[in-house]
Amino acid sequence: MDVNEQALKLHYDLHGKIEVVTRRPIETREDLSLMYTPGVAEPCRVIVQNYEESFRLTRRSNLVAVITDGSAVLGLGDIGPAAGMPVMEGKCALFKAFAGVDAFPICVDTKDVDKLVETIYLISKSFGGINLEDIAAPRCFEVERRLKELCDIPVFHDDQHGTAIVVAAAMLNAAKVTGKTLGQMKIVINGAGAAGIAIGKLLISMGFGNIVMCDLGGIICEGDQGLNAGQEEISHISNLKHEHGTLADALKGADAFVGVSRPNLVTAQMVSTMNRGIVFAMANPTPEIMPDEAKKGGAAVIGTGRSDFPNQINNVLVFPGVFKGALAVRAREITEGMKMRAARALAALVPEDKLSADYILPSALDKTVADAIADAVAQEAREQGIARI
Amino acid sequence: MDVNEQALKLHYDLHGKIEVVTRRPIETREDLSLMYTPGVAEPCRVIVQNYEESFRLTRRSNLVAVITDGSAVLGLGDIGPAAGMPVMEGKCALFKAFAGVDAFPICVDTKDVDKLVETIYLISKSFGGINLEDIAAPRCFEVERRLKELCDIPVFHDDQHGTAIVVAAAMLNAAKVTGKTLGQMKIVINGAGAAGIAIGKLLISMGFGNIVMCDLGGIICEGDQGLNAGQEEISHISNLKHEHGTLADALKGADAFVGVSRPNLVTAQMVSTMNRGIVFAMANPTPEIMPDEAKKGGAAVIGTGRSDFPNQINNVLVFPGVFKGALAVRAREITEGMKMRAARALAALVPEDKLSADYILPSALDKTVADAIADAVAQEAREQGIARI
Repeated sequence: MDVNEQALKLHYDLHGKIEVVTRRPIETREDLSLMYTPGVAEPCRVIVQNYEESFRLTRRSNLVAVITDGSAVLGLGDIGPAAGMPVMEGKCALFKAFAGVDAFPICVDTKDVDKLVETIYLISKSFGGINLEDIAAPRCFEVERRLKELCDIPVFHDDQHGTAIVVAAAMLNAAKVTGKTLGQMKIVINGAGAAGIAIGKLLISMGFGNIVMCDLGGIICEGDQGLNAGQEEISHISNLKHEHGTLADALKGADAFVGVSRPNLVTAQMVSTMNRGIVFAMANPTPEIMPDEAKKGGAAVIGTGRSDFPNQINNVLVFPGVFKGALAVRAREITEGMKMRAARALAALVPEDKLSADYILPSALDKTVADAIADAVAQEAREQGIARI
Repeated sequence: MDVNEQALKLHYDLHGKIEVVTRRPIETREDLSLMYTPGVAEPCRVIVQNYEESFRLTRRSNLVAVITDGSAVLGLGDIGPAAGMPVMEGKCALFKAFAGVDAFPICVDTKDVDKLVETIYLISKSFGGINLEDIAAPRCFEVERRLKELCDIPVFHDDQHGTAIVVAAAMLNAAKVTGKTLGQMKIVINGAGAAGIAIGKLLISMGFGNIVMCDLGGIICEGDQGLNAGQEEISHISNLKHEHGTLADALKGADAFVGVSRPNLVTAQMVSTMNRGIVFAMANPTPEIMPDEAKKGGAAVIGTGRSDFPNQINNVLVFPGVFKGALAVRAREITEGMKMRAARALAALVPEDKLSADYILPSALDKTVADAIADAVAQEAREQGIARI
């Protein structure tokens, strides 16, 4: 059986990858009176008096909602709420397995931004955080922005920020391996969707020099027509030299390529025009350029989204720890500062003496990563004064 | 410590009464590829092709949403979504403990019927069933009616139907104990809210003779002004003799009293005017009449909602099994027939030779009850042709 057949069989056998269990048995009359009526009225009364106690007396203390509209699920596109659920359950399983954070999947059956925002907001008080997932751009930008304004818990679109954090960590270490200076780097990001724009913004925040965004029409430049809101916004802070042209043009002399786009868009020849290029080709399952081709072109560091090559750039390294940290201090939001700190903490997990072109990130299966990121995120929240405990 | 203090301490210690766990560990690269990418894409594709497979490939196969607007929580009234959560979590814990059904609590932060309906509908494809909980009357009637029309999974307002089923079961056995004939019984229900009206309707469906509803203003009669939609509806099929007057008037010659109202509304004297009265005084925690008083009045059978007296009438006997049965056959709805069948199955669990005035229902802690009810509900769904598997 190939991986698809195996996975399908596993899903039929499991009947769901997550499960809701009780944290204490209910066997006796006393159990019933403490876990349910009449005793349960007392924590209710306490929360009526002090809303904050809901974060101590209920599961929202450790609970994230993984929410999608099913509009941009993996490479499958807009497949709707029911069909998106296996991915959301998988995500929830990762939250628990990697950080001990409870996560529950909810697929919302609408593509209407107003309805999506309202639905998520109206259920938000049942959770400690909201992980938005696989919502198509540009809708995802507005959904996240409005929810961040409305909700009193962190809202984090993982396709944007989780991806941005892991790429930033990888880029920090790749720069170190190649001896590049962050402020002098030209980084070309191909794919100006949710992930690409978030990566661009975070890299800019972290001091990487010149970010050049490309999309289907080539290089994006300030003043271009037909940009969506997210592309428009980043056009003012990226491509500082106002370059125009194709992806191939952009790559000439560039220090790094970040692909969140489509298979086979980059050739060895294009890589050979780069400046000892760092190549993160993250299209799944087939990257923008296969590692052996990138190497032929002279790439200095190569990363992909795949587990069968070195340097897997996978946001499972990020989101469990980010939420664990935010929940630990009951932060109302996940700030740019917390994202940067998470990226630096992740990069720092590769020991200096082991850092190499083939080892810029910890293994996606390394379960010590989440705690390190959680600590960094929590510490940053405290330093910013946004920790509530 | 009293029960309130104990329960509060337990809630602080537990940090939530339920927990979301993974059903399979994620340790290896292979685990990751089967539980998440790339393997997870395959079940998604299968569901895109055939929506029904979502009930096999995801947790919705065994998953109920417990949803409230926090507007009528226990005796606490309208306490909002965050404060209602301890009760909802408790309910979810009972679902799992008594029937192995996963249940997840969601508190929706609105009292607007349109928004409540829309929010619940839009998340409904993430679940296999919807248990509405503690939504105030008369809003609850419209919310349930509209959701039943919209959703392709069972929607069941437990305060209405769970209560109705357990009362009907108790009444069947109480009638047997007292030798009363169902069709000739006059049953007075005090409290024409969500529970009272649902009890009235189910008892009528099951062939109990004359149901007389009372509310704060006394007996409800067809043609009365100021009735809400639910009261109006039942006024046409209850109180067949068009009686008017007070609760005390209604009780004269009545065979049974069902209280879902307030403490201490009924006296021994009132009970003494009944016809060897069956008295189900279910106000919590203090019943409409205490059992010793009812006995003084000559009550033949006495039940309450409390565990410290005989004949506890508690819907924990009902909802876990009802949903387990509906999920087992993937019924789209829980019909009147399924409710009646559940009530009869519950009544039948008390063996004929043990049935007595002090033993008309199984213990609320009896974990064999859910399976018996589930079997009955599933069988009825099959016979009605609404089972989908």
